[in-house]
Amino acid sequence: MRVYLAGPDVFLPNPEARATLLKSVCSEYFLTGISPLDPLPNEPAEWAALPEAHRIARRNEAHIASCDALIANLTPFRGPSADVGTVFELGFMRALRRPVYGWSNTTTPFADRTRTFTHTTGTGTTDADGLLIEDFGLADNLMIEGAITASGGVFCSAKCNEAGQWTDLEAFRKCLAACQQLENT
Amino acid sequence: MRVYLAGPDVFLPNPEARATLLKSVCSEYFLTGISPLDPLPNEPAEWAALPEAHRIARRNEAHIASCDALIANLTPFRGPSADVGTVFELGFMRALRRPVYGWSNTTTPFADRTRTFTHTTGTGTTDADGLLIEDFGLADNLMIEGAITASGGVFCSAKCNEAGQWTDLEAFRKCLAACQQLENT
Repeated sequence: MRVYLAGPDVFLPNPEARATLLKSVCSEYFLTGISPLDPLPNEPAEWAALPEAHRIARRNEAHIASCDALIANLTPFRGPSADVGTVFELGFMRALRRPVYGWSNTTTPFADRTRTFTHTTGTGTTDADGLLIEDFGLADNLMIEGAITASGGVFCSAKCNEAGQWTDLEAFRKCLAACQQLENT
Repeated sequence: MRVYLAGPDVFLPNPEARATLLKSVCSEYFLTGISPLDPLPNEPAEWAALPEAHRIARRNEAHIASCDALIANLTPFRGPSADVGTVFELGFMRALRRPVYGWSNTTTPFADRTRTFTHTTGTGTTDADGLLIEDFGLADNLMIEGAITASGGVFCSAKCNEAGQWTDLEAFRKCLAACQQLENT
């Protein structure tokens, strides 16, 4: 089973080593991890003329379409929510009607993170600009967990200290175990 | 032509009035705007048993699938990037191979916004945690503009002061004009 590894892991120092590590953990669960950094077999020759950013975007879309499932690192990235590139890819795979999984290295609910970020006190329902603070007790914006659940995937979180935010793999492993189980059913 | 209006506009004060306004502007361009707040005709009866957040997520996915194109408000939302719920929906529609459009009320490049957010000085390529600052001169994460361009849509931005951030519709109108043009070709 081919699993696309979406996440801001590509922004970590030494992203190639990170991809190798994540793939090696996948193999422990008999899953084939596909990284956004992987070359695309038979990449269309005309893409060579595209600006690099656009070529990467097309390649990632093609990688996702070639996979059976997607596992997204949804650890909050520069703000209260997950990385938008990762969430784009989650939405893309969801529309292909394949299972999507998410993991995060925080257990703090989305609403609490948003309140902290916007300096909203107590259980305030709006921020200083009057914008609503979404509060359904979920891990992030409702489209994310809604899609994961509807697709048959699972969302897994782990409580990590700041040092473990971009290294801890407990929640990732929980996703892989669930994904392996799905494959065996 | 039915156009899904993705955006954090649902978090604005009086979101129903905002949806009515956006739809009314759509009609000037002979487009039918569909809001995430619209009831879904023939909503499956079994969804009544779902938690509200999950029901909204399913409804939004169904609305998107019922539309011919998607126009996303990508104005930065609580951080350097667009609202993740909006970007999920953009990725969803992109996978359906239909045209996606984006508009934003800032012209500041994504990399500059990220540097400001992460207090990175000069043209630094990483933040204080060593995480890469994506810098392709784009408006947001490369998956977003990559998808918009590949789909045949356009990205439009307008320079607004803070007061106009959630009210100005110049960039939105540019998207609608492009969308109307696409329909006529």
